[in-house]
Amino acid sequence: MSTTVSYTHLYSFTESAFKKMGCSDADATLATKVLLSADLRGIDSHGVARLSGYVRLWEAGRINSTAKPSIVHETPSTAVVDGDAGLGLVVAPYAMQVAIDKAKNVGTGWVSVKNSNHFGIAGYHAMMALDNDMIGIAMTNASALVAPTFSVERMLGTNPIAVAIPAGRQPPFVADMATTTAANGKLEILQRKNAEAPLGWVQEKDGTPTTDATALKQQGALLPLGSDREHGSHKGYALGSIVDIFSAVLSGGSYGPWAPPFPAYVPMPENMPGKGLGHFFGAMRIDAFRPAAEFKEHMDNWIGRFREATPAAGHERVLIPGDPEREAEHERMSTGIPIVAPVVKDLVETAKKLGIDSSIFHS
Amino acid sequence: MSTTVSYTHLYSFTESAFKKMGCSDADATLATKVLLSADLRGIDSHGVARLSGYVRLWEAGRINSTAKPSIVHETPSTAVVDGDAGLGLVVAPYAMQVAIDKAKNVGTGWVSVKNSNHFGIAGYHAMMALDNDMIGIAMTNASALVAPTFSVERMLGTNPIAVAIPAGRQPPFVADMATTTAANGKLEILQRKNAEAPLGWVQEKDGTPTTDATALKQQGALLPLGSDREHGSHKGYALGSIVDIFSAVLSGGSYGPWAPPFPAYVPMPENMPGKGLGHFFGAMRIDAFRPAAEFKEHMDNWIGRFREATPAAGHERVLIPGDPEREAEHERMSTGIPIVAPVVKDLVETAKKLGIDSSIFHS
Repeated sequence: MSTTVSYTHLYSFTESAFKKMGCSDADATLATKVLLSADLRGIDSHGVARLSGYVRLWEAGRINSTAKPSIVHETPSTAVVDGDAGLGLVVAPYAMQVAIDKAKNVGTGWVSVKNSNHFGIAGYHAMMALDNDMIGIAMTNASALVAPTFSVERMLGTNPIAVAIPAGRQPPFVADMATTTAANGKLEILQRKNAEAPLGWVQEKDGTPTTDATALKQQGALLPLGSDREHGSHKGYALGSIVDIFSAVLSGGSYGPWAPPFPAYVPMPENMPGKGLGHFFGAMRIDAFRPAAEFKEHMDNWIGRFREATPAAGHERVLIPGDPEREAEHERMSTGIPIVAPVVKDLVETAKKLGIDSSIFHS
Repeated sequence: MSTTVSYTHLYSFTESAFKKMGCSDADATLATKVLLSADLRGIDSHGVARLSGYVRLWEAGRINSTAKPSIVHETPSTAVVDGDAGLGLVVAPYAMQVAIDKAKNVGTGWVSVKNSNHFGIAGYHAMMALDNDMIGIAMTNASALVAPTFSVERMLGTNPIAVAIPAGRQPPFVADMATTTAANGKLEILQRKNAEAPLGWVQEKDGTPTTDATALKQQGALLPLGSDREHGSHKGYALGSIVDIFSAVLSGGSYGPWAPPFPAYVPMPENMPGKGLGHFFGAMRIDAFRPAAEFKEHMDNWIGRFREATPAAGHERVLIPGDPEREAEHERMSTGIPIVAPVVKDLVETAKKLGIDSSIFHS
């Protein structure tokens, strides 16, 4: 049911696709690296599976493949970036670099972005801070699929938050999470298998909790982290709202139910209050707080202690955020990336449309 | 089962208690205002019910009532504050003010605090930013009561996050949440009623999910937001960890399972890796991103639109984070603060110990 493709082959294929969309060589390379970081890290919903979606958005004129993102407002520690309707895969690293540069100067940097598009996995951008001995933060708003607590209306996206924190001998702490109980990609996997979803992931159109993994396609909604009021869904709703406000209200992007939809066939919302999707990035220099070596020693101690926390029966070990993705990356870099049949079909069709070679999928 | 006391009476009583502990007039006033903001806002677990706990920590020499918090390291946008083992109720507003002052200068301010104690409700400190047309952020680590996903060991506190965002005609957006499914205070309420807890709030000593609200007293643990792996508890665990690291690893506080316990009778952990509890504060000037009036107009639009989201059957309206607390504050300021019998008893005993008048509880 799936084809395994080497990272190198998938890289060349994806880069060719971005070039055919009109991206410069540098942008095509960057977009490819960012997009495939999801496939490497095991977040299959956000990687090459999205490529045909990007192409359709470009065809619909919603993605500008030759965009030049720029700073439209700034202070020593902040900036607003206009993404020029570019690929989020290119706009986001630009904006995160602005945050990092500001952190070099004044300790921290915070950048809110408007007029952008889907930016791949939040974790990639947050992790850009690590090599600079900084803590990195990345978040984005997204098409509305999530109903607030007590509501049946889709008002928020899955609005992820990523935080990357450097350590010393230990690998870094990297949290990258949708602010919903389950990411939409996990539902899609269940849909393909005709399997049921756990109760608490989605609700039906009228707000009834359901195990029907296809409920979202029938005007149902994803549920905020916490699932229901009794289990704290108002907290997941608040977190998703904070991401929306930091990413799009602060920047001048289009927020809440007006966030631009990812599928190109869905019409743009009417009366959009801002331009495009919004993101928010932060970089904090460790030595703006305490010497980096000292901090890293304590992070090693923190991570080591949490790894040693007594596991519950039936579990071998306690994980540190970032462990599963790092292990996936290590494995997939050497054994290749498995791509499920419907995505292969989609990529072959996209290749045909763009006139690029898709033989890597017919091994 | 409860006594209702006016805010004014409770204020005088609490202020007298802090003065008897040796606080300066200014510190006693501030500590009272911060502590009772919890009672006003309906977060009864974090208000005057904690007063006897603070007194016991002071008696045990763990709270320094004449502390002078100070900046021990800084950059234009950051600082580390040493709380001098003071009341968190006094240290936190000091540190938040440092963040606000830095935001005035360079757009944002970020302050990590070590050597502090319990700081009341996070929301109070975050809301200090509002009058300055800033977004405020506050978080703190706390005594370890929470088991990471897949573990039976208590490694994290309930580690709350508060974010306050100004609006225009609408009241501000104020989220203030523990990173657990339910705050410990909610469990305590069930314990007093001999009632069961919903499944997903706590686990037994061996990791078995339970409805026993007293499980925490039998070496069980609170569960991170999400409750179990299938419902995203790894996200609540990551959020609680981020709060712990920003608050205590960045500052030099004592983190994870080494966080100082709130009950004075619990011995301090051995080999503490830092000093006292840690907090983390942020302030972001709105006009460091876009003109404040413009932002507030969009926040009004955001809030208005979310208020109008279609409610689910059985619910009248969709709430905005901060609505219930603001409504409680409005009501309690005029009708008084209900205090349950065990807390009244505790306060009367504390008054006797300190030699202050407790007649307000015998009306």
